[in-house]
Amino acid sequence: MAMVCLSDFEAYAKKYLPKIAWDYFAAGADDCTTRDENILAYKRIRFRPRMLRDVSVMDIRTKILGSEISFPVGIAPTGFHQLAWPDGEKSTARAARAMNTCYIASTYSTCTLEEISAAAPGGLRWFQLYIHRNRAASQQLVQQAEALGFRALVLTADLPYTGKRRDDVRNGFRLPPHMKLKNLEGAFEYGLPPNSLDPSVTWNDIYWLRSLTRLPIIIKGILTRDDAELAVRHGVQGIIVSNHGGRQLDEGPATIDALVEVVEAVRGRVEVYVDGGIRKGSDVLKALALGAKCVFIGRPAVWGLAYKGEEGLQNVLRILQDEFRLSMALAG
Amino acid sequence: MAMVCLSDFEAYAKKYLPKIAWDYFAAGADDCTTRDENILAYKRIRFRPRMLRDVSVMDIRTKILGSEISFPVGIAPTGFHQLAWPDGEKSTARAARAMNTCYIASTYSTCTLEEISAAAPGGLRWFQLYIHRNRAASQQLVQQAEALGFRALVLTADLPYTGKRRDDVRNGFRLPPHMKLKNLEGAFEYGLPPNSLDPSVTWNDIYWLRSLTRLPIIIKGILTRDDAELAVRHGVQGIIVSNHGGRQLDEGPATIDALVEVVEAVRGRVEVYVDGGIRKGSDVLKALALGAKCVFIGRPAVWGLAYKGEEGLQNVLRILQDEFRLSMALAG
Amino acid sequence: MAMVCLSDFEAYAKKYLPKIAWDYFAAGADDCTTRDENILAYKRIRFRPRMLRDVSVMDIRTKILGSEISFPVGIAPTGFHQLAWPDGEKSTARAARAMNTCYIASTYSTCTLEEISAAAPGGLRWFQLYIHRNRAASQQLVQQAEALGFRALVLTADLPYTGKRRDDVRNGFRLPPHMKLKNLEGAFEYGLPPNSLDPSVTWNDIYWLRSLTRLPIIIKGILTRDDAELAVRHGVQGIIVSNHGGRQLDEGPATIDALVEVVEAVRGRVEVYVDGGIRKGSDVLKALALGAKCVFIGRPAVWGLAYKGEEGLQNVLRILQDEFRLSMALAG
Amino acid sequence: MAMVCLSDFEAYAKKYLPKIAWDYFAAGADDCTTRDENILAYKRIRFRPRMLRDVSVMDIRTKILGSEISFPVGIAPTGFHQLAWPDGEKSTARAARAMNTCYIASTYSTCTLEEISAAAPGGLRWFQLYIHRNRAASQQLVQQAEALGFRALVLTADLPYTGKRRDDVRNGFRLPPHMKLKNLEGAFEYGLPPNSLDPSVTWNDIYWLRSLTRLPIIIKGILTRDDAELAVRHGVQGIIVSNHGGRQLDEGPATIDALVEVVEAVRGRVEVYVDGGIRKGSDVLKALALGAKCVFIGRPAVWGLAYKGEEGLQNVLRILQDEFRLSMALAG
Repeated sequence: MAMVCLSDFEAYAKKYLPKIAWDYFAAGADDCTTRDENILAYKRIRFRPRMLRDVSVMDIRTKILGSEISFPVGIAPTGFHQLAWPDGEKSTARAARAMNTCYIASTYSTCTLEEISAAAPGGLRWFQLYIHRNRAASQQLVQQAEALGFRALVLTADLPYTGKRRDDVRNGFRLPPHMKLKNLEGAFEYGLPPNSLDPSVTWNDIYWLRSLTRLPIIIKGILTRDDAELAVRHGVQGIIVSNHGGRQLDEGPATIDALVEVVEAVRGRVEVYVDGGIRKGSDVLKALALGAKCVFIGRPAVWGLAYKGEEGLQNVLRILQDEFRLSMALAG
Repeated sequence: MAMVCLSDFEAYAKKYLPKIAWDYFAAGADDCTTRDENILAYKRIRFRPRMLRDVSVMDIRTKILGSEISFPVGIAPTGFHQLAWPDGEKSTARAARAMNTCYIASTYSTCTLEEISAAAPGGLRWFQLYIHRNRAASQQLVQQAEALGFRALVLTADLPYTGKRRDDVRNGFRLPPHMKLKNLEGAFEYGLPPNSLDPSVTWNDIYWLRSLTRLPIIIKGILTRDDAELAVRHGVQGIIVSNHGGRQLDEGPATIDALVEVVEAVRGRVEVYVDGGIRKGSDVLKALALGAKCVFIGRPAVWGLAYKGEEGLQNVLRILQDEFRLSMALAG
Repeated sequence: MAMVCLSDFEAYAKKYLPKIAWDYFAAGADDCTTRDENILAYKRIRFRPRMLRDVSVMDIRTKILGSEISFPVGIAPTGFHQLAWPDGEKSTARAARAMNTCYIASTYSTCTLEEISAAAPGGLRWFQLYIHRNRAASQQLVQQAEALGFRALVLTADLPYTGKRRDDVRNGFRLPPHMKLKNLEGAFEYGLPPNSLDPSVTWNDIYWLRSLTRLPIIIKGILTRDDAELAVRHGVQGIIVSNHGGRQLDEGPATIDALVEVVEAVRGRVEVYVDGGIRKGSDVLKALALGAKCVFIGRPAVWGLAYKGEEGLQNVLRILQDEFRLSMALAG
Repeated sequence: MAMVCLSDFEAYAKKYLPKIAWDYFAAGADDCTTRDENILAYKRIRFRPRMLRDVSVMDIRTKILGSEISFPVGIAPTGFHQLAWPDGEKSTARAARAMNTCYIASTYSTCTLEEISAAAPGGLRWFQLYIHRNRAASQQLVQQAEALGFRALVLTADLPYTGKRRDDVRNGFRLPPHMKLKNLEGAFEYGLPPNSLDPSVTWNDIYWLRSLTRLPIIIKGILTRDDAELAVRHGVQGIIVSNHGGRQLDEGPATIDALVEVVEAVRGRVEVYVDGGIRKGSDVLKALALGAKCVFIGRPAVWGLAYKGEEGLQNVLRILQDEFRLSMALAG
């Protein structure tokens, strides 16, 4: 089976992952409208290709929060990588470092932050944070991440409660007994912890976070100009336009559509990134043309892991990189 | 079979109800365009979700005509509940009371109003009225409903004649011999009574109704701003924006689209409700955001009955309640 | 098999007609886009239904060119009715008279005009005319039609050449040997006469036609405001907005869409009719609401013939009549 | 199997060509969105047909760059005709001459320019050029074409690198060993030459080309008004609006949509042609109505070759010619 484009990895993962794991990664909230819209919205955007420009040399490197990456595609935070590949997040970290890009490790990792760090020393990593009712646990994680060299905190803002993903409910989804949410072992055994997150979090908690760490704070899950403005005013260093892969509120906007108004509201004061729906190198180019500094991929990264772990994820990233470079050349 | 969302109840009902009964409940007029549009129109409406608001405590109770209900979803009037469950409307009444919401009993019930009242004393109930050529029969029903504690009259305005539902014609739909339109037993034996309704009813008949009862009068079936204005001028207490589940005139507007202009025309002078196409908690939130005080569900209530009678209908209502609460939280 | 709506007749005809005959009647030009658009365009038009109007008595009769018909649906000219039913156009004439409506007999009839007239004396009939290269033949037909009591001439303007109907080409469509174009027997034996029509016909030929007869002249095939204005200026008495059932130029406008601009241009100076895409009584109501005085049905009439000849066509007309009356009542 | 319309030839080619050859010709870049849009965009354009005009005599000849062709459809440059028919481009040249139209021979022909010229002496031919890193090779080809009587140079501007055609990658597409890129035999053996084209070509290279030849220069691959303006300013004699059949950058505009802005920008200063998505005679008429002087067909020409070589391609051209003449007549 030739792995030519990201859909090939998706087909592979669908075929070889256990159904319960596939369903978990594929899940969208309710009717999955927003999950699918993320992809469809990219298709509605059309290039205006320009010709006869010298495209013999192209530099696709970029910098995010001052760190250089080899091309503007990073790994979005997703949970439970051991469901896709035995080594889990350790493989993810290695692939990201090998491709010289940024990996945002999830609070819901099945490896500890130490294991992730040890697996790929020197790699560029950010840490994604949920704020738990048990604030002490969250504080400890933040400080641990800082100590381990993670270079930014990514606060997820769109999950006061977990969205309703019907297949997960039907499957009674939980982690298998031999996997653990390693970074939260004190708090609960396995499975999606019911009601452990704090739904009373507000913008003021940005100040609380700021008091805990000197890391830059990025807020993930912003979809409107109003929230973008609030984010800037509360002093974040970056915004990830995201709808959690369509897994939270169904029937909100596609991220690439929301990106436009967020970029406009932010007016360059902080960096803006986007995730959700990236399936081709030309999608990356569209996001950048609409003002994103960099994009992050979620499900495609997991498909890469499911295919061949670290090597599979590198395949996925390399395909995106080649496609991105080619579309830049062809679009002039 | 896990019952996770309303579609699961629909699938169950389609599988287990006799075809003639399923067809009757599912029927739309002509090509069923409006029936299906009711649902599609909700999908076209997009949320603009806001983040980092304290959603730890949410009050989803509301009041309709002064009576409190536990959440803004009531039971729309539909006929022939015994086709779905042996206890028929008695089960409906019990489920509505258990969930502390409002049940609008239909003129075309297969239980008498007394039976319905006796099944769930103290429940909040309204009575849906068709005006028959035999006005004395209608007058008697109105006065009986008032005497039995029904708290409002819901006058259906969109059925001067029955819409053309092709499958019912093909099936030669009639009630089975052991079921009766209990509230109309004097008038006709069983089946859809041909030409028994009065097609000459006009706005002036609101005054006639008013002369019969002190109950508030709600008019059901309004789809335009002009009729909304007329309704207010004729002194009704409430309006249900409805197209009879797409069973009357095909190719009119979806109810959620019509709601907007009705709410605008009414300018808060009377309460406005809507039915048709509600399939998820987020649909309820959309209707409320567009100005409805409360929504009513028709077919989903019948599916609940078909699944497990009173318990099944409670399941349906509870799912909607949970989904509604969750979407409120996720939309901020 | 219950015949409930026009689609039932279509399904019957598709099943029981010889493929070559079905294909001929069903054919559209090229990709059949316009043929299908005729129907889809009706679906895009939405009613704004009004409530509580006295609809107990409704008069659906109308007058076209001064003659009363029982409801605003006539029979459009279509050829070769013997392909659908042995008695051919004689049955059509009888059904139209029985339903008290207008039948436009085609030049390409498989019965003579005498046979048609004799089959249903006193029926309201118009005669559809193609102008042949052999002008004498056309002149003779016109004068024969007038002598036989046809009450108007319908000049088809959209067929300088026959459209490309792929299935007819594939099937090598010709009339079976025992059928003849009875009104043109001098000119050619059977089959679609190649190049017999005069492609040099222009607006000035209206004057020529006028010189031949005192019958009112109706022009069929107008789709633009410019041609509507020309038609009025050249003194026609009526316009049929038509695209020949999508059988001539593919990818022109749907007739119900073109009706609007034609009605606007004509400003009541002559009567405007429309054909193409009528499948339900509510379509008739839409056409009338948009300014048509009457509609004509083509393929549905043939399906009725194919079902049971005269009786089948009456069934089709009666269903449309009932549906039309019901939609009027439900739309208020 | 009756060959009635171009889709019939497509179906034939799909059935009888080796999969690898069919895939090569059918291929579009990435998701094939633009390839399919080329066709869909034509369908969105609607005629406004006019009636009663004298269409008995129609002249469909036209001139391109001063040379008369029998109707405004030429053969676009496509590679590897031997994959479709043993005689390859020699058959193409013969068919084009027989139909008295223009054939643009591709750099990637499987016959030499001499063979093509010798096969159909006196035919109207243009030569399509890619600029290779090895400029001397390109220069030699240009001068050879001029010497052989090709009457214009068509510079392809949209292929600095080859687009990503997934099926070709999956199939490991290469020419079979017995076929060669005859015009480039010095440079590489067979298969798509990797990186042989010069991605540093810019507008200034038009001057370089101009210095090599007195042939008119046409630029192919323009999709925006800005590039159209640049093309005129750099002195080209013609523009082919093209997206390379959707084989280069996916998700750019359909060519018929881009044609409008190019024609507007050019304001008649040079001739504008279009290729991509032509499947019916009415598509040709639409392109001309929107300002194209002539259209070129790519895949349909190959299907014709695959059907019966020279004769098959003539069939395709004759069908287009007949359809084009008929649509002109029917559109008035």
